[in-house]
Amino acid sequence: MRKINIAIIGLGNIGSYLFKYLNDNKKKLMEKNNCLPVIKYVSARNKNKKRHIKIKKNQWLKNYLDSTKLKDVDLVIELIGGAEGPAKKLVFSALKHKKHVVTANKALIAKYGDQLSKIAEKNKVNLEFEASVCGGVPIIRSLKEGLIANKISKIYGIFNGTSNYILSTMDRYKKSFDEVLIDAKKLGYAEANPVSDLNGDDVASKLKILSSLCFNSFLNNKIFVEGIKEIDKIDINNANKLGYKIKLLGFAELLNGKIYQRVHPTLIKKDSYVASIEGVLNAVIVDGSPVGQSIIQGEGAGPAATTSALVSDISSISRGNIKFPFSLSSKERKKLVFNDIKSRFFSAYLRFDVIDKPGVLSNITSIFSKNRVSIKRLIQNPYKNNKISSIIIITHDSKNMSLTKILRQVAKKKYIYKKPRLIRIDTN
Amino acid sequence: MRKINIAIIGLGNIGSYLFKYLNDNKKKLMEKNNCLPVIKYVSARNKNKKRHIKIKKNQWLKNYLDSTKLKDVDLVIELIGGAEGPAKKLVFSALKHKKHVVTANKALIAKYGDQLSKIAEKNKVNLEFEASVCGGVPIIRSLKEGLIANKISKIYGIFNGTSNYILSTMDRYKKSFDEVLIDAKKLGYAEANPVSDLNGDDVASKLKILSSLCFNSFLNNKIFVEGIKEIDKIDINNANKLGYKIKLLGFAELLNGKIYQRVHPTLIKKDSYVASIEGVLNAVIVDGSPVGQSIIQGEGAGPAATTSALVSDISSISRGNIKFPFSLSSKERKKLVFNDIKSRFFSAYLRFDVIDKPGVLSNITSIFSKNRVSIKRLIQNPYKNNKISSIIIITHDSKNMSLTKILRQVAKKKYIYKKPRLIRIDTN
Repeated sequence: MRKINIAIIGLGNIGSYLFKYLNDNKKKLMEKNNCLPVIKYVSARNKNKKRHIKIKKNQWLKNYLDSTKLKDVDLVIELIGGAEGPAKKLVFSALKHKKHVVTANKALIAKYGDQLSKIAEKNKVNLEFEASVCGGVPIIRSLKEGLIANKISKIYGIFNGTSNYILSTMDRYKKSFDEVLIDAKKLGYAEANPVSDLNGDDVASKLKILSSLCFNSFLNNKIFVEGIKEIDKIDINNANKLGYKIKLLGFAELLNGKIYQRVHPTLIKKDSYVASIEGVLNAVIVDGSPVGQSIIQGEGAGPAATTSALVSDISSISRGNIKFPFSLSSKERKKLVFNDIKSRFFSAYLRFDVIDKPGVLSNITSIFSKNRVSIKRLIQNPYKNNKISSIIIITHDSKNMSLTKILRQVAKKKYIYKKPRLIRIDTN
Repeated sequence: MRKINIAIIGLGNIGSYLFKYLNDNKKKLMEKNNCLPVIKYVSARNKNKKRHIKIKKNQWLKNYLDSTKLKDVDLVIELIGGAEGPAKKLVFSALKHKKHVVTANKALIAKYGDQLSKIAEKNKVNLEFEASVCGGVPIIRSLKEGLIANKISKIYGIFNGTSNYILSTMDRYKKSFDEVLIDAKKLGYAEANPVSDLNGDDVASKLKILSSLCFNSFLNNKIFVEGIKEIDKIDINNANKLGYKIKLLGFAELLNGKIYQRVHPTLIKKDSYVASIEGVLNAVIVDGSPVGQSIIQGEGAGPAATTSALVSDISSISRGNIKFPFSLSSKERKKLVFNDIKSRFFSAYLRFDVIDKPGVLSNITSIFSKNRVSIKRLIQNPYKNNKISSIIIITHDSKNMSLTKILRQVAKKKYIYKKPRLIRIDTN
């Protein structure tokens, strides 16, 4: 009987769930993969934490790094997290010692994936990371296998459940960002420290991994990232009136031979598929040839969805067959040109809260005109009970650098009452 | 350099598209799979048809069955179609002669998949059929690999683009079934002979294959199938007023330890995901544990989407590694109990067009009551300019056999003006 000896390093919510799953489903996995998964060792920072799983004494490792050297380990599962420190040490060491690695660590893969995959390749072991991008959405395996025939021109979608929960709840209940964030923490939809969920970094890591897989290129750090902290319920309300929803989207796209990676709040038409995704769900949309458009949607995070992804990687390795971590060998992966978005064109939504006095509107529109940005729609809303007006402008497609220049120029004006806002519009 | 010698049997739209694709993308596939795909032979019923592809003289087989015996063929791609005749002969013979097989033939797999997979297994060759179910939606590979960890309780969705195009166009333009069908043929959204698309058989074949993969069971012919031919634009209009859309859905579900397979027009809430799928798109929804709900959407048919699926199978075989066609070996697959839907409970929409005279309503409701079906909502619409009324009844959850009995009993009444209609409602 074939078997695979596993070490699980990191026993938080996900590690504990996986431990229990593997124990409970040994037989079924044996039938499907013709290979028995055996949890040989585990390691965790805090050995005495309540976990509701039965760990035998001889399963505990003295030192987590031993998992990378012991002869009776075939596969190391890294569930520590973080791009540096112990997670990095563990994965580099495991691959160097010819152990297969499965990880849910997007930060690590986004940063060191190229180096790691070279070692894996050289040592003929697998490095799999389905769980690092949108747990319940089998997007990596779909790109590497199900959609392998396709030349992909664009991948985009909702890659972060916390920020999507916050935006859709702000919209549905007309609440402010801060109010919703407090509730989200209470309900477990946001972590105690949700910085990387809210500032776009979490999406950025996932997007780098996906665009590398889509375009057969090395990982690239040229990426524009803007989070959702400054989204005001006024903007959500305005978007609704204009026929849009605001979503935090990640995009990787090939336009005229150049690749752009960007993460930012986006106005997207109300009746589009992406606008309909509410709550903590994730959705990935792939435009490819010959397949056309494919969409995969599912739960993005949490121990259950992540375990589904981890087990798909464990199964793939169990069935044997060495695959390249990024679909192609490092020799075949390309160094493509990734472009700054400053020269990309966007239609945009801009909001200026101004002190209502003669000449303001003419001054603002003249700044647009000097920067050669043409206005598609302009709405002026006076606020009640004071002399403040909100000026909403929707532009035609314009260079990103012109748009940001307008924002900077207008922001300095004395008639500006509050920091102006720029939100890009998805016109596809 | 590793290579795989391929014979493409059948050169219709799909076969020709695949031929061109493989020739144009040899190098890329070589890089990804470390194996060069070589089209060694082709065969087609009509050799002289215009195809816009360059076939060399020595690529033509004298007899299509030679592909199953020639030593320089590793993989036979069957694109003939149909559950019997040449397609059946070809695939049985290829597997017996230890050739790998890739097919897009849902009818063949739904009928002979169990026998064929036993031969493939015995002879240690692959039988892959991703293209047989919803071409552009990589659902089979997702079930076998990406979602391998999951215990699946339900799979359902829109599996036929033609019928979905017809229903959504009837709805959008308030047209009759026959009007839309004529347009659909002109526009290429319906084949010249669309019988199996409209009577539900096409969906039934796909559903049998999917439920076998989801529940690890052998293929099972216990399936309830009803097509869309009798859907009247009046029903679509009524559905809209009640907050529903009508879709042709396939369902395979595990309820209290019993499996039900069913294909029928279904009233589904307007704001549900499935209701939003318009035109020729396909969408598959999988409820599994631990993953939760996953959705995959894409183009269901056509040469491009189907080629994407075929190439994913060809690539999987190219990378080596023998897999079980139905995920498990025939020894491990189960003989599960599949139930007739007659004892399943449904909420239903019933329409009775009646001659408007006293006592009719009381007679109908008494038939409901005798059959112990309780009415949730009743709407009576008199038609203009004559003495005909339409009675719409929405029931609470009731046994399917009671609902069909009511339909039969009322249909016999003299006051019935037109054949009554029963459409099941999805209440999840």
